[in-house]
This record gives sequence, C-alpha cells and structure tokens, in this order.
Amino acid sequence: MAERRECDVAIVGAGLAGLVAAKLIADAGRSVLVLEARDRVGGRTLNLDLGEGKVVELGGQWIGPTQDRIYALIAELGIDTFPSYEAGDSIALVRGKRYRYPGEMPGMNRLVLADFAQAVARIDRMAKRVPLDRPWDAPRARTWDRETLAAWLRRAPKTAAARSMLQVYLTAIFAAEPEDISLLAALFYVHSGTSFEVLSTWEGGAQQDRIVGGSQLVSTRLAEGLADAVQLEAPVRRIRQTASSVQVETDRSAVAARRVVVAVPPTLAVRIDYHPPLPGGRDQLLQRLPQGTVIKAHAVYDEPFWRKEGLAGFAWSPHLPVSFILDNSPPDGSPGVLSSFIVGRKARSLGREEPEARRKVVLDCIARYLGLRAGEPRAYHDLDWSAEVWTRGCYGAHFPPGVWTQFGPLLREPVGLIHWAGSETSAVWNGYMDGAVRSGERVAQEVLA
Amino acid sequence: MAERRECDVAIVGAGLAGLVAAKLIADAGRSVLVLEARDRVGGRTLNLDLGEGKVVELGGQWIGPTQDRIYALIAELGIDTFPSYEAGDSIALVRGKRYRYPGEMPGMNRLVLADFAQAVARIDRMAKRVPLDRPWDAPRARTWDRETLAAWLRRAPKTAAARSMLQVYLTAIFAAEPEDISLLAALFYVHSGTSFEVLSTWEGGAQQDRIVGGSQLVSTRLAEGLADAVQLEAPVRRIRQTASSVQVETDRSAVAARRVVVAVPPTLAVRIDYHPPLPGGRDQLLQRLPQGTVIKAHAVYDEPFWRKEGLAGFAWSPHLPVSFILDNSPPDGSPGVLSSFIVGRKARSLGREEPEARRKVVLDCIARYLGLRAGEPRAYHDLDWSAEVWTRGCYGAHFPPGVWTQFGPLLREPVGLIHWAGSETSAVWNGYMDGAVRSGERVAQEVLA
Repeated sequence: MAERRECDVAIVGAGLAGLVAAKLIADAGRSVLVLEARDRVGGRTLNLDLGEGKVVELGGQWIGPTQDRIYALIAELGIDTFPSYEAGDSIALVRGKRYRYPGEMPGMNRLVLADFAQAVARIDRMAKRVPLDRPWDAPRARTWDRETLAAWLRRAPKTAAARSMLQVYLTAIFAAEPEDISLLAALFYVHSGTSFEVLSTWEGGAQQDRIVGGSQLVSTRLAEGLADAVQLEAPVRRIRQTASSVQVETDRSAVAARRVVVAVPPTLAVRIDYHPPLPGGRDQLLQRLPQGTVIKAHAVYDEPFWRKEGLAGFAWSPHLPVSFILDNSPPDGSPGVLSSFIVGRKARSLGREEPEARRKVVLDCIARYLGLRAGEPRAYHDLDWSAEVWTRGCYGAHFPPGVWTQFGPLLREPVGLIHWAGSETSAVWNGYMDGAVRSGERVAQEVLA
Repeated sequence: MAERRECDVAIVGAGLAGLVAAKLIADAGRSVLVLEARDRVGGRTLNLDLGEGKVVELGGQWIGPTQDRIYALIAELGIDTFPSYEAGDSIALVRGKRYRYPGEMPGMNRLVLADFAQAVARIDRMAKRVPLDRPWDAPRARTWDRETLAAWLRRAPKTAAARSMLQVYLTAIFAAEPEDISLLAALFYVHSGTSFEVLSTWEGGAQQDRIVGGSQLVSTRLAEGLADAVQLEAPVRRIRQTASSVQVETDRSAVAARRVVVAVPPTLAVRIDYHPPLPGGRDQLLQRLPQGTVIKAHAVYDEPFWRKEGLAGFAWSPHLPVSFILDNSPPDGSPGVLSSFIVGRKARSLGREEPEARRKVVLDCIARYLGLRAGEPRAYHDLDWSAEVWTRGCYGAHFPPGVWTQFGPLLREPVGLIHWAGSETSAVWNGYMDGAVRSGERVAQEVLA
C-alpha cells in the first residue's frame, strides 16, 4: 500500500530547480516533500565515479560569470570551483585541413573570420532586443518567431565556411539543430545567457569554471540538508487538486499538500495525469517543448598526455560525428579525461547504434583529433540522455517556431495550486544550471507569497 | 482488482485507426481487445445529438474523392453519404470590404487572384516531388525541412492580399499556423491529400461528402461488430513487453497479448509508461509531434434561412476570430446549422476565454458574416479539442521543422512487439479519416505477417 504523507508543499523532481525550491520553502518554515522518480538526486547533473575519489560529469558541468545564483549557492554549500583547462593549442579539422592554433580562432581565411564575427555581432545585436521576461514582446517577435534559426543561418553569413563554423557553435550551444529552433527562441537564449561570446567560451564565458566534486554534488548537498524530505524512486503519476489542496500520487506514496511545484522538463511534466485536466493551452505548450539531443562520452587515460604536447585537448570539426572534444580531467590532472560531445542530428543517428558501434565511432573521432594514442583510452563511458526515462534529452527543451509568441505567456503561469519550475522556465540563463537555481528561487517566492 | 484478459492483439484507442485494425485482425481469425480511455468510441469523430434523430459532428466529418478506403469501409458497413451543401453565394470579408460571390473566388483584384493561383501552383508542383512513403528522400528535403511554411509564405506570393488569403486556407487545412509547420511537412501533407485544390474545396475535394448519421457512426458500427472486444473507460497506463509477449495495463484491466497496436495521437502515445522504455529516438519523435488547435462551434436555427437569400452559408475572413463558417445542416435541411471554425493562433487565444465569452465572440462573428438573425441561434455548442484529455488537439499532429528529415524513418517502425497506427502514420491522406483507415489496414497487415 502507498505510504501517506502530508506537507505544505510537494515538489516533483529532485533536480537543481526542485531542490533549491525545497530548501527555500523549508528555510521559510514550511514543510516540504521532494518526490523523485530516480534512485538519485541531481536530474541532468550526474557524476561518474573515476575511482580514488575522482569524478567527471555525464551531464551539466560548467558555470561562469554572471551565473550569480549558482555561484552563491555553491559558496553557501561550501563547495569549491576550479578553472576549466584551456592552456595550449586547439585543433580544428575543416574541409580536409588540420589547423593547430592558440586562442579562440584558427588561422583561417580572414574573409571567413570577418564574416563569422559579423554574423555573431548581428546575433548579439538582435538578441539584446528580446526582453528576457517577455520574449513575445520583442519589437520583431512575430517575424523572428515565424522562421527557424536555420533559415537565418542560410542568409546571414556570406561564406559557406563561416556558416559551417557557426553551425558547429550553435548545435553545441543548443544540442539541437538550427532548424529545430525559432530565430526568436535562439535570440532569447543568447540574451538569456548574456551574449554569443559568453555562451561559447571558456575563460570569461559559460564554460569558465568547474565544480570540485562534480556538479551533482550541489544537489547531493541540498538533499542532505533536506534529509527525509526527499523521497527517491517515487515517480509522480497523478496530481489531483481541489480549490484548497493537492494530492500527489507516486508509485510508493500519496502526498497531501497545499501546493505543488512541478520541476521536471516540459515533456515529462505533460506525462503526469492531472485532475482536473490541465487547460488546453498549458497542455499544448508542454507538447511543443521537446528536449535537445546529446550523447556525452568520456575517454579516460593514465594522464592527459596531450598537455605535454602543448595541446589544450580542445578540438572540433563540422564534419565528424563528434563535434568537439575537450580536456575534462579532474583538478589535479589525474587521470586524463577527454570528453566528447555528439549533438543534434548526429546524436540522433548515433543514438540508434548499438553501444559497441557507438564507442568505436567516438574513439575513431578522438583519434582523428588527437592521434592514435587518444583512440585507446583505458576506459570509456557514454550517456545518451534521450534514452534516460526521467530526462528524455539534454541539455534542455527548445522552442520551435511559433511557440514563444503563441504560448509564451503560459510558461510560468500557475494552474490553480500547481506551480512550474525548471531551467526552461527561467528568464535568465535559461537552460543552464544557473537558470534552474533561479527558477527554484522564483517558484519558492511564488509559493510563499 | 484489475480484470485479467488475454488476446492475440491488444489495441490502444478505439478511434477509426484502432477499430479498423481490430476488425481486420479479428476477420483474420485472431482475437483482439480494443482498450479505449473514453466512455465512447470514435476518437476525433464525435456526433452531437440535435434531437429528432438528427446529428452534426463536433469533430472530423467530411470525405471526398480518392479517399477510397473510407468510402469502401462505409459502403461495407451499409452507411450512406450525402453531398455537403454549397448551393448559393459565398461571403468574404476582407479589409473592410464585403464580397458576395458565386463559385470559388471572390471578385477581387485580378492581380491578387493571379498571384494566389500562382502560389498555389507552386505549392502543388513542389508537393508532387515529395515521396509519400519517404518524405525525407525528397530531392530538396533538407532545404525544405529547414524552414517553416510561414517563411515560404512571406516570400512566394507577391501581394499582401494573396498572402493573407493563402494564410486563411492554410490555417484552415492544418488547424495550425504556417510557422508551426516545416515547408517539407506542408508539401508532404498537400501531396498526401492529392493537391491544394482537393484539400480546400467541396465538390471534387476533401469536403465533398458527409456521412448520413454522422461520422462517428462508422466507429459505432465497427465497435458493434467487435462486441465485447471493445473495453471502454480503460485508459492504457503501461505497456510491458518481453521477447514474446506484451502486457497492457489499464485503470480496470490487465491484458496479456502477443502484439500491441498503439493507435492514439503521438502526444498521447508518449504519455504511456513503457517497459522496457522506448528507445530515445522514438520518444523524441513523439515529443516533436504536437496536435493542432481548433474550436468547432455549431449554431442551430429552426431552418437554414440563408438558403432562401441565395446564400451557401459559407463565409470567411482573414480578420475575424472565426476564420470561416459553413452550412452544416442535416441532409433534409432541418434544423439549420451553421458551423464555425476557429483555428491555430486564434483558437489558442479563444481557448483561454470562459465558455460564455467564447460563445459571444463566435456569435458576433456569425452575425457579421450573415446578419443579425444568424447571431441569435436557438442553440449553441462548441468544443475546444485541445481541452479534450484523450485527444489534446485537432485535427491532427503536425511536423515542425527538422522532424521529418531527422526522425521520419522511425514513424512506422515497430518497437519490438509494439506497432504504431493512427492517421499521423499514414502516407496517403495523412491527418484525415481516410488516413486513419489506411493506417489501421497497414498495421493489421504488419501484425498478421
């Protein structure tokens, strides 16, 4: 029989958003209960144990300047950060040529680099015109929401090489293809994360810092603080509400509460059975926010041997299944870890392969980037987030054409006693860990008000 | 306790697709069980009782030439058809002007009409190049799937008036906005339904005939033939499969079968809990097929008084919330029924209003189309299909940019012992009742093979 529990606020999902909301509501003296489907907390953050106390992340991992809320949170939890490794040269494989270069850009044709820079400047200029809390009120919202980012990308850069480079950056930023996303949504996202440069760089950008102990540690610490107010292996199947109370049913419990916060990705939120049913608009909004697609892989070596060769470990190509790799070794550089990102269309194909074939494709790519030695790691791990039942795709949900302008105002609007959190609901750093924290803070305020 | 049942093939959903599949599988000597969430059969077809044995449809209703499978089915079931009423003049309200005209097109500026005709010809020409069973293999598939239908619509017609007219037609055809749909998807759909003209016209087109007794009668008759092999009020929550058997769990039954056919809209299919979980690609496909949005309203009068004034009852405007109205009276013209269609963006706004406000908006529109008397019916009924828990939007699902080319090959591919039906899976007449019948026939063949 289902265990019966009571609390002021029930929270669906023990990712960052749900746990932050729970902490703040509990700190304000209300009782909470976080219901988590998995046997672990952390949602889209997940540590992989490398042995000897070392970890690397299979999910979200970086933080950077202006992500003030996640920095504040980890400081409060007594967690340290360390800088991402980026000393040394990078590698680019473009149209049969191998570029080895220091700094941000390979020594390509100046015309291509200028074209690329101009396209980026245009994105930033347009992005600044999108109001973060009301993207549908941007001066050209309807026009920008009518077309895909891909249509813009066909038009804006003048050279095929700049377009192809921009495509690599954009699919890396969204874990989706430019045709999956409306231009307005892309501009909102860039503005939400400050600028194209901030989104795409390490030092000074969104990939600047890493978290000592792995990003999942943030959720683990939050959950420790909540003690038995977190219930694992309790997937929420049904939410019933009356005018004054909610009842949340999981596979192992029935929880009576005064409010409920749903803090899971949109495509999972719509799979819960609501009574009374969600209004048509809310349901249709949730139908329209699919998750991105990324396979993240880690190759582990005795040491980060590329560093001795003056390489940063960062390499990219528009042509290979692995769009980019980077040095993701622990703070002390032992063991060496190269992480591969397969995103968008390429992840959708590779995800259909068997694990062994997938491993081979990834290691072949790494070898092409950094040499044969890189193709023979002592260990290999990967995760296709679209196959994870309690996520169904990473990094986050994206907004196809027409969604922001037709459904946007419903995104954060409570439905009776049901409130909505999750990084996808955040105006600032939407889709990032910082956005998740902000959404937890916003929803806690809402519930406590 | 859940009732236990056994059969060869369990079928999820007693809409046309599921019932046709069930009939054919049963005819082949296999035992079937159709599990339906609602307390009725028919899915997106639903009769409204007008009293005295008269009905009108709240959902899908028309059939027309080349829809051979639905015609064959209704003939087999002994059901009759009658022609849609279209004698008399039509009305168009465009930019403050009122046009009353016979035939297909208002007497507008010849340049506009030529521009419109040319744009339609271009759509048809491109549509013919999309292979119905493999839209992703169209010669320009990637290019066409990268942009929205709206982007094409901004570019192709030369005049704003033709563009606005085309917009009315397209939103009426899709119950979605041109920005919601990829150009490739729109072209596939037009080809799937023969041509733009066939999709948009009455005599000789997809709206040519109506079904005596209402379209839901087809499902009712099919269900009668299946007797107690149809279980109502049995929403399927979970499907478990092993290498050789499936177990389908509903709120009232647990069904053991050798195969299962899922014949519900994609956004409902993804809400079922599958064990083992669906592959990532399949889940992400289902995340990406949102339902269209339509509110259909019926105003009932003692008689179809507009006929005496030489009017067909058909009227349309790009500017009003109700995009078009039409004479939907029973075969004998008694009572008079005017049906209103609110589609896409307009349905998304109007769906957020209270029923009384919605009724007022609709009746105001009807009065503007056909005069004050039309604004005072003896009865009024409407249905917002996005609020229907076991449909969540009509007419059907649409394909946003990037979906056909990245996920299309998965659309009909079985997952172990799970087979997929529903009008959205049909190559021919996708999205229509005929497509539903064809998908039922195709899946029955698959299962019996």
